[in-house]
Amino acid sequence: MVGGGFGGLQATRSLANADVDVVLVDRRNHHLFQPLLYQVATAVLSPASISMPIRSLLRKQRNARVRLGEVTAIDTERKTVHIAGRERNEDLSYDWLVLAAGATHSYFGNAGWEADAPGLKTIQDAIQIRQKVLQSFEHAEWTSDPDVRRKHLTFVVVGAGPTGVELAGALSEIARRTLVEDFRNIDPAEARVLLVEGGSGVLGAYPDGLRESALRQLRQIGVEVWLESRVVEIDHGGVTVQRSGHEAPTRVDAGTMIWAAGIEASPLGSQVSGDTDRAGRVRVGPDLSLASHREIFVLGDMAHTMGADGEPLPGMAQVALQGGVHAAHSIQADLASRPRATFRYRDLGSMATIGRSKAIAWIGGLEFGGGIAWLVWLIVHLMALVGFRNRVVVFFEWAWGYLTWNRGSRVIHNRFGPLDTPGPKAEGTRPPPSASPQSA
Amino acid sequence: MVGGGFGGLQATRSLANADVDVVLVDRRNHHLFQPLLYQVATAVLSPASISMPIRSLLRKQRNARVRLGEVTAIDTERKTVHIAGRERNEDLSYDWLVLAAGATHSYFGNAGWEADAPGLKTIQDAIQIRQKVLQSFEHAEWTSDPDVRRKHLTFVVVGAGPTGVELAGALSEIARRTLVEDFRNIDPAEARVLLVEGGSGVLGAYPDGLRESALRQLRQIGVEVWLESRVVEIDHGGVTVQRSGHEAPTRVDAGTMIWAAGIEASPLGSQVSGDTDRAGRVRVGPDLSLASHREIFVLGDMAHTMGADGEPLPGMAQVALQGGVHAAHSIQADLASRPRATFRYRDLGSMATIGRSKAIAWIGGLEFGGGIAWLVWLIVHLMALVGFRNRVVVFFEWAWGYLTWNRGSRVIHNRFGPLDTPGPKAEGTRPPPSASPQSA
Repeated sequence: MVGGGFGGLQATRSLANADVDVVLVDRRNHHLFQPLLYQVATAVLSPASISMPIRSLLRKQRNARVRLGEVTAIDTERKTVHIAGRERNEDLSYDWLVLAAGATHSYFGNAGWEADAPGLKTIQDAIQIRQKVLQSFEHAEWTSDPDVRRKHLTFVVVGAGPTGVELAGALSEIARRTLVEDFRNIDPAEARVLLVEGGSGVLGAYPDGLRESALRQLRQIGVEVWLESRVVEIDHGGVTVQRSGHEAPTRVDAGTMIWAAGIEASPLGSQVSGDTDRAGRVRVGPDLSLASHREIFVLGDMAHTMGADGEPLPGMAQVALQGGVHAAHSIQADLASRPRATFRYRDLGSMATIGRSKAIAWIGGLEFGGGIAWLVWLIVHLMALVGFRNRVVVFFEWAWGYLTWNRGSRVIHNRFGPLDTPGPKAEGTRPPPSASPQSA
Repeated sequence: MVGGGFGGLQATRSLANADVDVVLVDRRNHHLFQPLLYQVATAVLSPASISMPIRSLLRKQRNARVRLGEVTAIDTERKTVHIAGRERNEDLSYDWLVLAAGATHSYFGNAGWEADAPGLKTIQDAIQIRQKVLQSFEHAEWTSDPDVRRKHLTFVVVGAGPTGVELAGALSEIARRTLVEDFRNIDPAEARVLLVEGGSGVLGAYPDGLRESALRQLRQIGVEVWLESRVVEIDHGGVTVQRSGHEAPTRVDAGTMIWAAGIEASPLGSQVSGDTDRAGRVRVGPDLSLASHREIFVLGDMAHTMGADGEPLPGMAQVALQGGVHAAHSIQADLASRPRATFRYRDLGSMATIGRSKAIAWIGGLEFGGGIAWLVWLIVHLMALVGFRNRVVVFFEWAWGYLTWNRGSRVIHNRFGPLDTPGPKAEGTRPPPSASPQSA
């Protein structure tokens, strides 16, 4: 079991009563409830509220062990998995292998953009974005130059998928409501939140009516949306965007840029299969295993799984969860010498939130937007959170935020540095004086 | 107003109705409730639960402004304060200056020890220690070598003042109770928590009866206490301790070492006064100002303030808070051309917690230990926490922890790396590829 996200964790749990030993390997010690990660980035929630130690989650499951470490090599002949920094004799061997290592940002060949426009996949990413956003307001408070101030109060989100939409909406609310009374020299309502999207609308995967509704709701809370616009350059001072219908590219000076435009599957996929799609996802058979290695399953964001409509399934928690259940059932079928079943994805609906009382939802063919969608979103996400403790804390934070417009988690961990240092300083660590910079 | 800790924040608030403009400068954006910081380090609380943005705290106070930045120079002739990275013409000028910039760890000339034995003063420190502790258990789970395992499960705390005692007690509880069922290969009860103290007992500032009680309670929960023992060397693999009565120094291999042995005042003090004590604290007059510059006040951990008994007052929140009130009153006296009063510290008592139902308290001359002291400790700290929201969250975390023995905040933010990398990796940031290592 490689990966403690929705897919890997679910597959492990579904094997609780099977006569197998499960070893779950992850390079992080926690399962992350990624759908709420943007709320950590926008200072609503603390990291601990949406993450649970994998060990605690599997404490009661006696056939499961957890190993922290990063899988760097898979030997499909010897059937072993190698972990970074471990000896070869510590390689883990397997009878079945479930790969659910997820995906990371893709900059489409412009990896250099990452330094100035980070993506949002991990708690580290979220803390980094949170610090960048909060620091931008502090920089704006210092300066007396209106151009510099405008730059620091400009936030650009690239990509209008669910993450981009949710981030842009939350940023606009922070700027216009949460921070309004906290600053003396600046008017946070001057803040400009720009959402840049290459396609013809936001939230490409949704039906047209909802996409238009989402666009309308975004604009209501003050997000500027540029459609059919392509980012051609990102540097430390801003972005350059080619808008459709404009001849010359438009330059936007910005203090904060966030990348939500594309993802790329874990490179582990290419170690077990040559058959990957453009995003590096492994094409799997109808039982989610590889045609060449039926003992290897690939799940979730790493997998190119064909849906009933002939389109690959989207990178959503539901797809990974159901895939995890299916992989576990297939392993149990093998144990019982039964034939494996075919994976059928049950679409339980999807939804995205835009702001306070603003959301869209698409459930069982029904489309709705606004306050009702937002309430449904709240309830579904609260119920889906793993762990009773987290549910209570998140409920309290949300209720508190709703009543007071405050954000509970507005902590910049590191010291506030001089203007225009490239990115926030390292947090949580001081490089040991004896260590080389690379090892810190 | 330099510093948004207990002293600086209190002084600012006490000037709310005075006819002055207050500028509070801090290099961090939050006020930290330091007495509970060890609970962040031991995974009980989230950083956001014990910190509040300074801006929010002063939102309603119209005569106060907040500037983030690090004060690097004070010109007592021109009466200006310089901030790192700002232009000279952005220097802040003052009529009165309140210095309350606190203190940091002192390694008594062995600054190189800091990399292997971090201290606990900031949220970054706390997160670093938390990650070190949690990672030690993960390393121990991997290894099959009993010596290596023993090393990773050895935690050394240097210094048995309040912070050292609270950390050692909490570590012992984590190891023996919280993590017990989470690991398969190791028995967390094998963990060894060693508290090394140079003096003849723990908690030097308390009366003898309480000190003995604290020592007894520590030993009850499994903390090994070495008194009259001096650390002679700290390196990446452990500590070397000279115990009294032993001829040769004793080597202890350890995976985690924490420094709680000494503090050193902010170097800003030496910029305004040549009269500092061994810990760099500025000797102040009876009204907390400098004899040479009566418009400069020095408060809290930065100040050497003489108490009624002829001993300097300890570095406690109460001393800083009362000092803040006094400095504000003195400024108001100056405005009204009244003479300044003499500062008199009112000892409201002090207490330290050791573990579940284990604590000592010394209030109004009364000494008590055990369950009652622990309850009083809980209530006092909960009431003293700034912000209703934080009180609710911390109360919930404590109640949850008490009932389940769980720790709510067991998140290792960064990836789990190979064994024996020197210290945890940088968190919350990836150094931009273009940046030089020094600037990251």
